[in-house]
Amino acid sequence: VPEQVSGRAWLQALLDFEAALARAQAAAGIISAAEADAIATVCRAELYDVAEIGAGAAEIGNPAGAVVKALKRATDTPVHHGATSQDAVDTAMMLVVKRALVPLLDDLRGAADAAAVLAKAHRDTPLMGRTLLQDAQPTTFGLKAAGWMVSLDEAADNLHNVRLAAQLGGPVGTLATVAARPGSSDPPDPAAALRVAAALAGDLGLDAPLLPWHTLRGRVGELAGALGVACGAIGKAARDVTLMPEVRERVGGGSTSMPHKHNPVAAISALGCTRQAPGLVATLLAAMEQELERAAGAWHSEWAPLNQLLIATGSAASWLRTCLETLEVHPQLTDADTGTAAALVDNALEAR
Amino acid sequence: VPEQVSGRAWLQALLDFEAALARAQAAAGIISAAEADAIATVCRAELYDVAEIGAGAAEIGNPAGAVVKALKRATDTPVHHGATSQDAVDTAMMLVVKRALVPLLDDLRGAADAAAVLAKAHRDTPLMGRTLLQDAQPTTFGLKAAGWMVSLDEAADNLHNVRLAAQLGGPVGTLATVAARPGSSDPPDPAAALRVAAALAGDLGLDAPLLPWHTLRGRVGELAGALGVACGAIGKAARDVTLMPEVRERVGGGSTSMPHKHNPVAAISALGCTRQAPGLVATLLAAMEQELERAAGAWHSEWAPLNQLLIATGSAASWLRTCLETLEVHPQLTDADTGTAAALVDNALEAR
Amino acid sequence: VPEQVSGRAWLQALLDFEAALARAQAAAGIISAAEADAIATVCRAELYDVAEIGAGAAEIGNPAGAVVKALKRATDTPVHHGATSQDAVDTAMMLVVKRALVPLLDDLRGAADAAAVLAKAHRDTPLMGRTLLQDAQPTTFGLKAAGWMVSLDEAADNLHNVRLAAQLGGPVGTLATVAARPGSSDPPDPAAALRVAAALAGDLGLDAPLLPWHTLRGRVGELAGALGVACGAIGKAARDVTLMPEVRERVGGGSTSMPHKHNPVAAISALGCTRQAPGLVATLLAAMEQELERAAGAWHSEWAPLNQLLIATGSAASWLRTCLETLEVHPQLTDADTGTAAALVDNALEAR
Amino acid sequence: VPEQVSGRAWLQALLDFEAALARAQAAAGIISAAEADAIATVCRAELYDVAEIGAGAAEIGNPAGAVVKALKRATDTPVHHGATSQDAVDTAMMLVVKRALVPLLDDLRGAADAAAVLAKAHRDTPLMGRTLLQDAQPTTFGLKAAGWMVSLDEAADNLHNVRLAAQLGGPVGTLATVAARPGSSDPPDPAAALRVAAALAGDLGLDAPLLPWHTLRGRVGELAGALGVACGAIGKAARDVTLMPEVRERVGGGSTSMPHKHNPVAAISALGCTRQAPGLVATLLAAMEQELERAAGAWHSEWAPLNQLLIATGSAASWLRTCLETLEVHPQLTDADTGTAAALVDNALEAR
Repeated sequence: VPEQVSGRAWLQALLDFEAALARAQAAAGIISAAEADAIATVCRAELYDVAEIGAGAAEIGNPAGAVVKALKRATDTPVHHGATSQDAVDTAMMLVVKRALVPLLDDLRGAADAAAVLAKAHRDTPLMGRTLLQDAQPTTFGLKAAGWMVSLDEAADNLHNVRLAAQLGGPVGTLATVAARPGSSDPPDPAAALRVAAALAGDLGLDAPLLPWHTLRGRVGELAGALGVACGAIGKAARDVTLMPEVRERVGGGSTSMPHKHNPVAAISALGCTRQAPGLVATLLAAMEQELERAAGAWHSEWAPLNQLLIATGSAASWLRTCLETLEVHPQLTDADTGTAAALVDNALEAR
Repeated sequence: VPEQVSGRAWLQALLDFEAALARAQAAAGIISAAEADAIATVCRAELYDVAEIGAGAAEIGNPAGAVVKALKRATDTPVHHGATSQDAVDTAMMLVVKRALVPLLDDLRGAADAAAVLAKAHRDTPLMGRTLLQDAQPTTFGLKAAGWMVSLDEAADNLHNVRLAAQLGGPVGTLATVAARPGSSDPPDPAAALRVAAALAGDLGLDAPLLPWHTLRGRVGELAGALGVACGAIGKAARDVTLMPEVRERVGGGSTSMPHKHNPVAAISALGCTRQAPGLVATLLAAMEQELERAAGAWHSEWAPLNQLLIATGSAASWLRTCLETLEVHPQLTDADTGTAAALVDNALEAR
Repeated sequence: VPEQVSGRAWLQALLDFEAALARAQAAAGIISAAEADAIATVCRAELYDVAEIGAGAAEIGNPAGAVVKALKRATDTPVHHGATSQDAVDTAMMLVVKRALVPLLDDLRGAADAAAVLAKAHRDTPLMGRTLLQDAQPTTFGLKAAGWMVSLDEAADNLHNVRLAAQLGGPVGTLATVAARPGSSDPPDPAAALRVAAALAGDLGLDAPLLPWHTLRGRVGELAGALGVACGAIGKAARDVTLMPEVRERVGGGSTSMPHKHNPVAAISALGCTRQAPGLVATLLAAMEQELERAAGAWHSEWAPLNQLLIATGSAASWLRTCLETLEVHPQLTDADTGTAAALVDNALEAR
Repeated sequence: VPEQVSGRAWLQALLDFEAALARAQAAAGIISAAEADAIATVCRAELYDVAEIGAGAAEIGNPAGAVVKALKRATDTPVHHGATSQDAVDTAMMLVVKRALVPLLDDLRGAADAAAVLAKAHRDTPLMGRTLLQDAQPTTFGLKAAGWMVSLDEAADNLHNVRLAAQLGGPVGTLATVAARPGSSDPPDPAAALRVAAALAGDLGLDAPLLPWHTLRGRVGELAGALGVACGAIGKAARDVTLMPEVRERVGGGSTSMPHKHNPVAAISALGCTRQAPGLVATLLAAMEQELERAAGAWHSEWAPLNQLLIATGSAASWLRTCLETLEVHPQLTDADTGTAAALVDNALEAR
């Protein structure tokens, strides 16, 4: 499991939520600045046992309870004040995604850059075009690589634009408890509640949503779709590499039984990842049907597939980058009119 | 099968491609204006037998061949000049989607409007919030309806923004044949080829893509994702209606065995549709891995699930609109502080 | 839409349920033999308008209500006595499956037979084995065809053994209403109720289940899985055909733009079908989570994907049969030791 | 990650393959008994670093190469003789499945037993039946529990009967290399090759397949389907528990914000697992389309989803068992005729 989506990464993200919530409530005068400082001080993953917190998740069905318990042992300030466990877990999920997207997008853009280099270098390299897996008419290697580039660029742009928002609503998503002063029975100030929610989001570098989204999972569905499309773009390029006699991965390797073979290991490993995506996306889309104020099962079904989808997409992007950055091209056609193909390549490179 | 995705709708879209291609080629001087006119004249679905064209699709594995054959029987002009069957089918698919989205988006926005009316009317109506399917703390019906509204609005916006592009590339996607003058062996003029592609897209009200996208299926994947997210948003609202004792569909009905029961038939029918979406989206995402210049199977696997996804999403939107437009609300709580919930509702309504 | 899963096929199956129920109730003395005869007389699809019944399905969310209404217009006997709409629809679904499996299994076994013929004929025909899409070591065409055969045989056996049961339970699945005499308020006789359920199943050639299975959908899940596995076995063989330079479909065809090409149209069309299966299976498995006595949405989500899965699997089996029955083999290797491969082929053919 | 599917469990299973292969080859006289003993001696997971072997998997795209390398460092006998990496990984996968099914089936049958206890105890306990989530007519708690029991029993039987076979074929699945004496260039003896394959399977307690099944993945598809159906059966029972006011989990817990609430945590946690299954099954069914002699990507896409499916199903079974074993039933109806329902319960219990 890569570090960005490890148990420790999730724990730190949960702690980041609690610290940011305390700061936001202090700024709105709900708790004191000293209390917020005390909370922030103990919100560091290295102070806790990841495995123990994970085991504690079974108690209420999610890890936030165990985190809050551990924090309350560490400090007697109003930790997690007015929040519900889903506020913590959803915000942590978005932080985990945000952090996992950094290397993922770097590899995806790196793969697109490698495709751009190939497109430019082979702008006029003739290649036998193949349709329905049969030889058809000449095209160019540059046009093929430009196609990979455009798809990878678009997938990266979509992922970059996915909406990642903080979550804060309290038990039933009304924000009522979030702005209630500890120990007071006065009705909470709506304006203060909205300010706390906005400050929490700002502190963590996440969007502030119009409404708590405990059971409005469009963000998760859009993210899943964008990761699925990225895997589709990666898989297309990797599949082409496995099928083309004209290319050879410098990183490719042999086999336990036929050391003389040169297998396109990076492309194949990328495909082994991308093919996991559609089913995981389906799970996350199906999980959008969440009941009433907080769901009984659908929400809980999101964590594993989202983690797995981030891992699969991230690994696939990394494998494809390696594949394309080390791809040797051995042209087999020597003569063909490549004028229109070259014009398309120029168009695509200029539009970058 | 709704008319927007019927066999006849697909046939007309295929014919629209052929007419627009001819006009675009005439504008670039590849064929004559008279030829383009002659072609356009026979590009009307009512001149052909949908079932016969459908049966002819088996010959080459897609319907474009049968359409071109029928057109060539009707006119001896250069029909389908330089194009490949996938140019016709992909462009037709995008036209079918574009046309199917009109009533679909109308119903989706209609459902969101009905939710907005409910949110406004019930801004201060207390409701028992339920989490994990158990009674929890009071919220308001207005906040719940505002959540439905925001999700439906976002889903509609995403669908509205989906990229729908024309397809033109010729056999291997180089545009080489598209700009070749019939009967001439001169190399094609790249600039003319690009002009033909752009004119075709403009004529049909579709985007002009950077490159032919025969095996770059990001557009299809994004569309699938957006439809899947729309179904998720619809399903969430419909699920709530089936679970809330406080609401009653005026259109709901009885059963064959218990006429006294009042079932939320519209909400249930919506759920019967939305639950079909995740699997169909998975199929379309898996189909993004298309081989080389044109795919052997993956492309062919797109048509049925895309049609089914349009039908399921369109029907679900229509059912939910009916459900929400006729929803009776019978409050059961009489007293609760609703200040923060009302502030959230106001926020969401103002942001529309 | 093939006739076995058409609207008319479903209508006839619904009517078959009503006729068989009446006969079973007459045998148990619940209604009279004359009434059962009168009901059977009007249970013929040609007496009704399929489209009208279909439109009527919207009223209660399933077609059984409209069928019962139409029957009650045609005869004033106790039609559908004590049954619930799901009894009719589930039994009809199983009848539709049973009837659709006849040609489907015939094609699947036909494809396996064709593979067996190839295995026998090419028991010693050397072929370059390819692993990770690269040339590896020699194998035989016979061993490859024997593999297809074994997989297709196993898939057909599994499908043949799928449990298809009648459904009868009444409104909440207790059988209480089924054995109640019309007009009488005596408590129903449990033994008579069980006899009616058994007789209904026997009449229709379906299994009698231990319990009504309105929300126990194991049968549907197993069927979906078996169809999914069949598509997997078909897809494997079809994929091989598209990738092997040594074979050629006699039925394969050209393209609109490159008439000289010989595309493996049957194999590609099979793949266009098989690739739709996994997503449809996922939908049907997800639909197994059905609430309490009868589900609100999950049940309704089964019909379209099950129909589509039957169509996709049936079409794929038919395409593959055509492909394998007409496959030309053009060996390219001339010399290799094929002893162990031939022994495996002999084993597999003998085990048939 | 549960221990049955951990990296260490996989490593031991890979080593078990190598030891069993050596013994089988020694029995057939291909290698010596002393060599087989020497190999078996070093085939213990505790001798190796799981993380290092895992990292080495990247080299050829699967872990078998790294295992063989490590073994060859430990002993200079003919390790992995004539086998291909997929022989080792597929056999290991089947061993991992076999071992993971032990506790999984124990929990599944334990949950069914708990349902049987409930069915017997509540044979005559009236319960309001609910259809389409609305109150309908009385049924009994015993009938509902009997339904859970029957579904869980059937799912367990199906899983128990899943075919788990050893894999042995060598590079292209012909068994040619497996029976070749090290250092000799004589053609291999087909009978000896078949004996080695049978002995390997027998040694490991797995079925001996008719043919090597490197790209014939029916077994994996059937296993996936059976796990998916098991999750469906579990999810149905768990969903009922979350929806019934008449039951209460003794293990259920509170929430971070509403300690007074009693949430059905075990049922919800079960649902959080079962909902992951359909998408994972779809991935494994899609992976059945494997190219030629060994696949380039599809095979590699099986490991993670299969592991995840085993984890999800195993966890769900365990949660449901806990839920049902501790379920308190608080009847709310006092009077209803339960004769037919009781007869059905008796039937189902007797059939066990």
